[in-house]
Amino acid sequence: MAVLESAESTIYFETGLESLNLLIEKGNYSRVFVFADGNTSELCLPVFREMLDDFSDFDLIETDPGEENKNIDFCIGIWKTLLDFGADRKCLMINLGGGVITDMGGFVASTYKRGVDFVNIPTTLLSQVDASVGGKTGIDVDSVKNMVGTFTLPKAVYIESKFLKTLPERELLSGFAEMIKHGLIADKDYYLSLKNSDFRAPGPDAVLRSVEIKNKVVTTDPLEQNLRKILNFGHTIGHAVESYALNSPSPLTHGEAIAIGMICEAFLSHKYAELSKEELEDIKNYISGLYPKYILQPESFETLLKLMQSDKKNEHGQIMFSLLERTGHCAYNCKVTEKDIEESLIYYNSIYVA
Amino acid sequence: MAVLESAESTIYFETGLESLNLLIEKGNYSRVFVFADGNTSELCLPVFREMLDDFSDFDLIETDPGEENKNIDFCIGIWKTLLDFGADRKCLMINLGGGVITDMGGFVASTYKRGVDFVNIPTTLLSQVDASVGGKTGIDVDSVKNMVGTFTLPKAVYIESKFLKTLPERELLSGFAEMIKHGLIADKDYYLSLKNSDFRAPGPDAVLRSVEIKNKVVTTDPLEQNLRKILNFGHTIGHAVESYALNSPSPLTHGEAIAIGMICEAFLSHKYAELSKEELEDIKNYISGLYPKYILQPESFETLLKLMQSDKKNEHGQIMFSLLERTGHCAYNCKVTEKDIEESLIYYNSIYVA
Ligand SMILES: NC(=O)c1ccc[n+]([C@@H]2O[C@H](COP(=O)([O-])OP(=O)(O)OC[C@H]3O[C@@H](n4cnc5c(N)ncnc54)[C@H](O)[C@@H]3O)[C@@H](O)[C@H]2O)c1
Ligand SMILES: NC(=O)c1ccc[n+]([C@@H]2O[C@H](COP(=O)([O-])OP(=O)(O)OC[C@H]3O[C@@H](n4cnc5c(N)ncnc54)[C@H](O)[C@@H]3O)[C@@H](O)[C@H]2O)c1
Ligand SMILES: [Zn+2]
Ligand SMILES: [Zn+2]
Repeated sequence: MAVLESAESTIYFETGLESLNLLIEKGNYSRVFVFADGNTSELCLPVFREMLDDFSDFDLIETDPGEENKNIDFCIGIWKTLLDFGADRKCLMINLGGGVITDMGGFVASTYKRGVDFVNIPTTLLSQVDASVGGKTGIDVDSVKNMVGTFTLPKAVYIESKFLKTLPERELLSGFAEMIKHGLIADKDYYLSLKNSDFRAPGPDAVLRSVEIKNKVVTTDPLEQNLRKILNFGHTIGHAVESYALNSPSPLTHGEAIAIGMICEAFLSHKYAELSKEELEDIKNYISGLYPKYILQPESFETLLKLMQSDKKNEHGQIMFSLLERTGHCAYNCKVTEKDIEESLIYYNSIYVA
Repeated sequence: MAVLESAESTIYFETGLESLNLLIEKGNYSRVFVFADGNTSELCLPVFREMLDDFSDFDLIETDPGEENKNIDFCIGIWKTLLDFGADRKCLMINLGGGVITDMGGFVASTYKRGVDFVNIPTTLLSQVDASVGGKTGIDVDSVKNMVGTFTLPKAVYIESKFLKTLPERELLSGFAEMIKHGLIADKDYYLSLKNSDFRAPGPDAVLRSVEIKNKVVTTDPLEQNLRKILNFGHTIGHAVESYALNSPSPLTHGEAIAIGMICEAFLSHKYAELSKEELEDIKNYISGLYPKYILQPESFETLLKLMQSDKKNEHGQIMFSLLERTGHCAYNCKVTEKDIEESLIYYNSIYVA
């Protein structure tokens, strides 16, 4: 359907893996590995096999699903597996799965023998619209998210809506939060079109639009010095909420946490940037209508603030926000007082006070 | 004394760390770390401190000396130490030590939070003339050398002969082998000048010439696709000999092993490339006169060949050599039969048969 090209990497949309067949054929690779987790090897690998022409000569490296396995210990296991397979520097790694697989597979490939080629086939909505772009690889160390990683572009990314058919509804909703974010920070029309769509069946056009937006931002600022920071809208508070909920009886998906973060940060956008009262209300109503009810316990506020302070995105200890100037426009490097951060959490909770 | 500039990285020679003072001053770093091993923190850190202007506000991260500690476990320890220190993405890491410290420190820095700035101050002759150039970082996993790493250039490299004053003679001789190699593969006059010099007191001019040669090769071919392979002269056999000796009662330094490798590969250069009989004799006599006696046991030949086959530099299983066409000129991608490799080992041993 479409192709997004940059100097070093290409994103293919709905091309039925035709170009992957070509890449493998032309690449003269000594060996091809497919990296997947238990779920994607069961649900996505058959779809993948069907889309490959004659090529079937790969070895499968499988890991357990879930963020808790995106860590250095599993990494070491994969490096050693590659070595045991006799993988040299001319091998190719195909990462087939959600963000956990593409992040960890990308890190393994970008460091094994100082880097071998890899391609990503994101199979969750979140990884298609977000992890697919920007060349961030990463793993967790000691449960610290993405403490270690590289900026390395895959040779190519293949986005195929086919893979989403088996994805649970909650995972679809999680990825949808990033799409809403893309509309809010960069494209009001896109935001409005999402409001009229069903997150259970995200159209390829919408996925493509999200990828275009992220790609444009990331190409302008590959190393996250400036503009790329707008992608953090909803994430300063959202990440803290996500981390906090992680060890609670009801953990949130990334998207659910970001949805909460976007409502709080829309509040701050009204207070610190130019976002109007009406736009704030609209965002709050739309997002809170879509995502499940969740209350931020006042006892958690202090911890949440601490988590924000230790966020990797901050420099020299100051918490920085990306805030909306209006729907479709975002500013970055906004300083906000702790008191107002707290107020934004209270604003969020007020949704559920009758 | 001199400065070697490239787009992304600069090598400073004998400038008394003046430019490092400037870099720290201008860099607006949130924090500065010095990474050293037990020996360099004792012997080089005082010299380093003396060369710094007013700057003294750094934290020391110290590790145990030796190749056996250049591994993923130590790496994880350093990542965690950085985190415990609250290091963010704007910190600077100064690697003060030999190749173990610059390789491992470079890897840690290039992956911590997806990459923080680092500079290298190589304090061994080997790391000054070799590891200082080319952007290779790396660590060992399961005793497999440099199994994991990245290509990442340090912000700057500072080469100061002052640091060599405390270096043991055997380490000087080890680094000297790489200098001989640089002469042999790229500059006959330089090779001749080395023959007239004393390895115990390598002049800054010679160090600079070596760095220039390696830098030129590496700049032409940063990712080791072609020309860079000439730097492997002496290393295909040398690495195997080094690995083999590692677990023996008399392990060799890297340079001692490469010295043996260069004699063997000079023999192959005479057989497969254009190196003349006289040149071969000259190389054999010079190198064997300089380096300690060492016999390659015939029982080890089979293992040595296996080690060569599993060398990371080989693709698709074929052992590749870089061979001299004449003194000062080197070809790469030369295929050699196993029988002739064995013959070259016998040729080397013949030095010690009266
Ligand atoms: N690199 C980046 O720029 C970037 C951006 C955003 C998120 N991320 C990372 O991505 C990760 C989250 O991504 P995610 O939500 O895709 O996580 P994930 O990979 O864990 O996938 C979520 C779940 O869905 C399953 N799954 C995947 N594809 C499926 C399919 N087609 N059908 C059925 N089940 C399927 C997985 O096995 C897993 O259980 C985090 O680790 C995050 O840090 C990275
Ligand atoms: N990155 C590259 O391109 C590259 C090139 C060549 C070698 N290497 C790597 O470098 C390592 C070998 O380098 P090395 O020989 O410098 O090893 P090293 O760092 O282990 O140093 C050798 C010994 O000298 C000590 N030492 C260092 N500086 C000293 C000083 N000024 N005075 C007294 N003692 C000192 C060290 O503590 C150590 O005991 C290997 O791991 C190799 O893989 C990397
Ligand atoms: Zn996100
Ligand atoms: Zn060497």
